[in-house]
Amino acid sequence: MCQKIHVTIWNEFYHEKNNARVASLYPDGLHKAIADGIAADDLDIRLASLDEPECGLTDAVLEQTDVLIWWGHCRHADVPDEIVRKVHRKVLEGMGLLVLHSGHFSKIFKSLMGTNCSLRWREAGERERVWNIDPAHPITQGIGDYFELPHVEMYGERFDIPSDGHVVFISWYEGGEVFRSGVTFERGYGKIFYFSPGHETYPIYRDANVLRVLGNAVRWARPLIRREHICPKVEALEEIRSEDPAATARAGVVQSL
Amino acid sequence: MCQKIHVTIWNEFYHEKNNARVASLYPDGLHKAIADGIAADDLDIRLASLDEPECGLTDAVLEQTDVLIWWGHCRHADVPDEIVRKVHRKVLEGMGLLVLHSGHFSKIFKSLMGTNCSLRWREAGERERVWNIDPAHPITQGIGDYFELPHVEMYGERFDIPSDGHVVFISWYEGGEVFRSGVTFERGYGKIFYFSPGHETYPIYRDANVLRVLGNAVRWARPLIRREHICPKVEALEEIRSEDPAATARAGVVQSL
Amino acid sequence: MCQKIHVTIWNEFYHEKNNARVASLYPDGLHKAIADGIAADDLDIRLASLDEPECGLTDAVLEQTDVLIWWGHCRHADVPDEIVRKVHRKVLEGMGLLVLHSGHFSKIFKSLMGTNCSLRWREAGERERVWNIDPAHPITQGIGDYFELPHVEMYGERFDIPSDGHVVFISWYEGGEVFRSGVTFERGYGKIFYFSPGHETYPIYRDANVLRVLGNAVRWARPLIRREHICPKVEALEEIRSEDPAATARAGVVQSL
Amino acid sequence: MCQKIHVTIWNEFYHEKNNARVASLYPDGLHKAIADGIAADDLDIRLASLDEPECGLTDAVLEQTDVLIWWGHCRHADVPDEIVRKVHRKVLEGMGLLVLHSGHFSKIFKSLMGTNCSLRWREAGERERVWNIDPAHPITQGIGDYFELPHVEMYGERFDIPSDGHVVFISWYEGGEVFRSGVTFERGYGKIFYFSPGHETYPIYRDANVLRVLGNAVRWARPLIRREHICPKVEALEEIRSEDPAATARAGVVQSL
Repeated sequence: MCQKIHVTIWNEFYHEKNNARVASLYPDGLHKAIADGIAADDLDIRLASLDEPECGLTDAVLEQTDVLIWWGHCRHADVPDEIVRKVHRKVLEGMGLLVLHSGHFSKIFKSLMGTNCSLRWREAGERERVWNIDPAHPITQGIGDYFELPHVEMYGERFDIPSDGHVVFISWYEGGEVFRSGVTFERGYGKIFYFSPGHETYPIYRDANVLRVLGNAVRWARPLIRREHICPKVEALEEIRSEDPAATARAGVVQSL
Repeated sequence: MCQKIHVTIWNEFYHEKNNARVASLYPDGLHKAIADGIAADDLDIRLASLDEPECGLTDAVLEQTDVLIWWGHCRHADVPDEIVRKVHRKVLEGMGLLVLHSGHFSKIFKSLMGTNCSLRWREAGERERVWNIDPAHPITQGIGDYFELPHVEMYGERFDIPSDGHVVFISWYEGGEVFRSGVTFERGYGKIFYFSPGHETYPIYRDANVLRVLGNAVRWARPLIRREHICPKVEALEEIRSEDPAATARAGVVQSL
Repeated sequence: MCQKIHVTIWNEFYHEKNNARVASLYPDGLHKAIADGIAADDLDIRLASLDEPECGLTDAVLEQTDVLIWWGHCRHADVPDEIVRKVHRKVLEGMGLLVLHSGHFSKIFKSLMGTNCSLRWREAGERERVWNIDPAHPITQGIGDYFELPHVEMYGERFDIPSDGHVVFISWYEGGEVFRSGVTFERGYGKIFYFSPGHETYPIYRDANVLRVLGNAVRWARPLIRREHICPKVEALEEIRSEDPAATARAGVVQSL
Repeated sequence: MCQKIHVTIWNEFYHEKNNARVASLYPDGLHKAIADGIAADDLDIRLASLDEPECGLTDAVLEQTDVLIWWGHCRHADVPDEIVRKVHRKVLEGMGLLVLHSGHFSKIFKSLMGTNCSLRWREAGERERVWNIDPAHPITQGIGDYFELPHVEMYGERFDIPSDGHVVFISWYEGGEVFRSGVTFERGYGKIFYFSPGHETYPIYRDANVLRVLGNAVRWARPLIRREHICPKVEALEEIRSEDPAATARAGVVQSL
C-alpha cells in the first residue's frame, strides 16, 4: 500500500484562456485547482491538456497513469479518435477514470457507456443539494447526508446512461429538477466514476466536499490489475467424446465450393 | 397488439458462399433459416446482408425495423462505420437488437457495450447444455430447465461485457467451460439480447429450442417507444431566488480577456 | 391476452374510520378509490382489508390473485406473520406485488427486500415533482417527462433498499429532498413495484398520473409463470468418472462415531 | 490499515461430532480448519458454534465482529429467530457476512435475500471447475482463470437469488450442471458474499484456492462504516410556500369522527 497512485488530470483548458470570469476563478486551469485540492502524500499528480502534443496523453503517460481525471466541454470534437481509442483501451485494461461535469458528452465517456449520455440543462446560478445515497461507499466517506453548492449549472434527468450505473449521489436543484450526480461503472477491468458538479464559471473545484469526493474516488478507482484483453483459442480441459461432424470441413478438405 | 412486428435479419452471408459444409446446411443463408424458423402471423420479416447497397440497411429499412437480428463473423471490419452509427442511434431510440454468436465482436455490439467483448473459444464439435437461469423471463417461455445442442463451437468465460447484463442462460460445455450464453441489456430506449449459440458449421438455427428463444426475444425486444435523444436547455420549473454570480459574464459583457 | 388480470387491493383501512379528513377524502377506503381509478375491461378487481377474517387474504383469494396491491401504515404489526409468509411465498412463486407509500415499512416489503427500508420523512403538504427516469418502461407509458403532486408527505433519501432496485421515478420535493419514488424488483418468479406517492390525507389516489402509473404497473407485474420452488436432488446428466472418496461414508457404513 | 479485522467463524458443528468421515477430515470442526487456513497478521479470528450459549453470538461478540463467516447445514432450524434477527440487524448496520455452501438455506441468508434460495443438488463426488468471472474484483486476486476441486457436492442452477447478485465465480460440474458459485450482495451498509464450495465430506477447506478466496473475501467485506438505521422526521431545508390543506387535521382539531 506504500506505492503512490499516479493520477493524470486532463483538462480541455480552453475557457480559462478565453473567458475573464473563468480565468479569474481558475488562473492556472481548473485541472491545477483540482490537483492542488486533492494533493496528498499517496498521490503523484500530473497535468495534461488538449493543446499539448498528443493531448498530453502519450503512451508513456498513459502507461504510468493509474487514474485519469477528465474535464472537457466545448472542444470534445477536437480530441483525436486515436487518443480516445487508446484511453478507452487503457480503461478496459484496468486504468481508473473520473469523468467530470460536461465530460458527460466527451468521446471517451460516450464510447465507454454506449449510450447517448444526454440530459437537460440550465445555467441560472441556482442552488444544488447533493444527497448521499450510499453512505457505505468508499467515495462518500467523510461526506454527510448531503452537501450544498450555492451556485451551479443545472444538469437534470433523464440522464441517458446504462442501467448498471451504481448511484452514489442524487442532486436536488432549486429550479425543480433532480439528477443522478454521482454514478459508478465498471468496464473491462477498469472503474469509472461520473460526477456532475463542476461548472467552470463557479468555484466548485474549491469546495471542500467536492474535493473530498474526488480524492476518495481516485483511491477507489485505483486498479487492482492491469491486463490486456485477449480472445484465446483454447484446448479442452475435459475429454470430448462427441464426434465433431464439422471436423472434415474444418480440416480444409472440402472448404471451397 | 394487432400491429405486426417488423423484423430485419441481417447476415454477413459470406461463409454460405465460400464453405461447402455451411452451404449445404444453409443453402439460402442462415438468415433465411432463422426467418423460416421464427415465421409467425405477428411477424413481418425482411432479410438484409453485407453485400447489398448500404448493407441492406437503408434509412427506410431501419425506419421500418422494430427488431434487428445480427449475424456476422469474419467480415465485421467490412461494415462501414456510418452504418454502425445509424444502427447504434436507432437502438438508442428504441429499436430492438438481437446479436447472435460471433456477433459478440461486431462493431455494433462492441460500440453498444463499450467493452472488449472478448471470450475464450474452441471448435471441437462438443456438446453444450444451455441452462435456463430466469424461468419467469419472456425470453425463456416454453424452454425447460435446460436444453442441449449436440455439436457447437465453445464460447467460454470470461466474457468481457458490462455488469448490467441480465443473465438469462448459462451454458455448460463438454470440454470444461461455462458461458453466460443469453444476456439482456438496455441502452437508451432500446432492448438488446445477446445469444451465443449459432455456429455456421452446425445446424443450430434449425434447433427448436434455439428458434423458440429467438422468437421470444423478438417479441421481448419490440419497442414501446421510439424517440430521438435531445439535450434540451430548459426553463426553471420553480422560482430561483439565488442570485447568479456568473450572470454578467454569461451576458457576454466581459467574456473576452 | 383475453384472460383478465385478477387484482386484489389490500388496505389496512384504519385511518378512513378514525380520521375525519381521511374519511372525507376516501369515504369507502382508499382501496376503493384505487379500484375505481384503475377499473378497466382487462382487470378483475377485488378488495381486502385488515379486519376481515385472515385479513381478507385466504388461500383461495391468494390463489386467484395475479397482482396484489398493498397499502398499510400504522397497523403493520397487526398483520399476522402467517399471512405475511403466505403472501411472500406467493410472490416468489410468481404473483405480482405493488407496495404503496407507507407500505415501505410493511412486514411483507421488508421481508422481500431483506433491508431496513428506512427513509426520512415530513408532513408539510409540500409539492412533489415525480421525474420519469425510464421513458421506455411499461410502467411509465403515458407519463411525460414528469408530473406534479401539489401536496404530499415527503419521503426522502437515503432509502434503504437493495441495489437491484430498478429506478423508474425520482422525486423532487419543495422542502429540499429527493427520493427514488418508483422502483422495481424481481424476487423469485414475481415482480414487485414500490411507489411512494399516496399519503392518506391528500387525494393522491384521485390523481390521473398516479392512477395511470398504478394501472400500468398492474399489467407489468402480471405473472408469466406461477411455480413452486423446489430444491431437487438430481441425477447426473453426464457420466461421472471421478471416484467418490465419500461414497462409503454416505452409504452409512461408518457414519456414526 | 493497522487495525486488525475481527472475524468470527460460526459453525453448526454437528457433522464433525456425528459422522466418522467428517470427524477425520475436520477433527476440530471445519470452522477451525478455516481459521487455520486464513490465519494472518491482520486478522483476529474467533470461533463460535450452535451449542454454545446464545449460539456463541452474544451481543458482545457481535459488537466486536467485523466479518462473520457462516457454515450451517442440517440444523438451520435450531438457530433461534432472535439470534438471526440480531445478526441480520448487524449486517444492515455494516458487519460483513460470508455465507458458505449449505448456508444458502440458513435463516440468516434467506432473510437477507428475501428469496427462496433453492437450487438443485447431488452428492456424487464429482469434479467442479470454478471459473473466475471478475478478475479485477478484490475477492479473485491471486486466483487464475479457474481452479478445480476434485470431489464436491454439486449445487446447480437455477439458484433462486435476487438479481443484484454480482457474479464473481461460475462453476462447471462433471455431471453437467453450472452454478453461480461466488456472488456478492450489499444490504444496508453491509457486504455479503455467498460461496458455494464447502461440503463437509471433502477436504475443501484445506484447498489453497478456496482459502485464498475466503481470505480475500474477509478483507473485502470489512465495514467502512457501522451505523444504526433510523427513520427520522426532518425539518425542511428549503422554505415551503405551498399551503398544507391537511394542516388543521394534523393539528388534531377534527381528528376523530
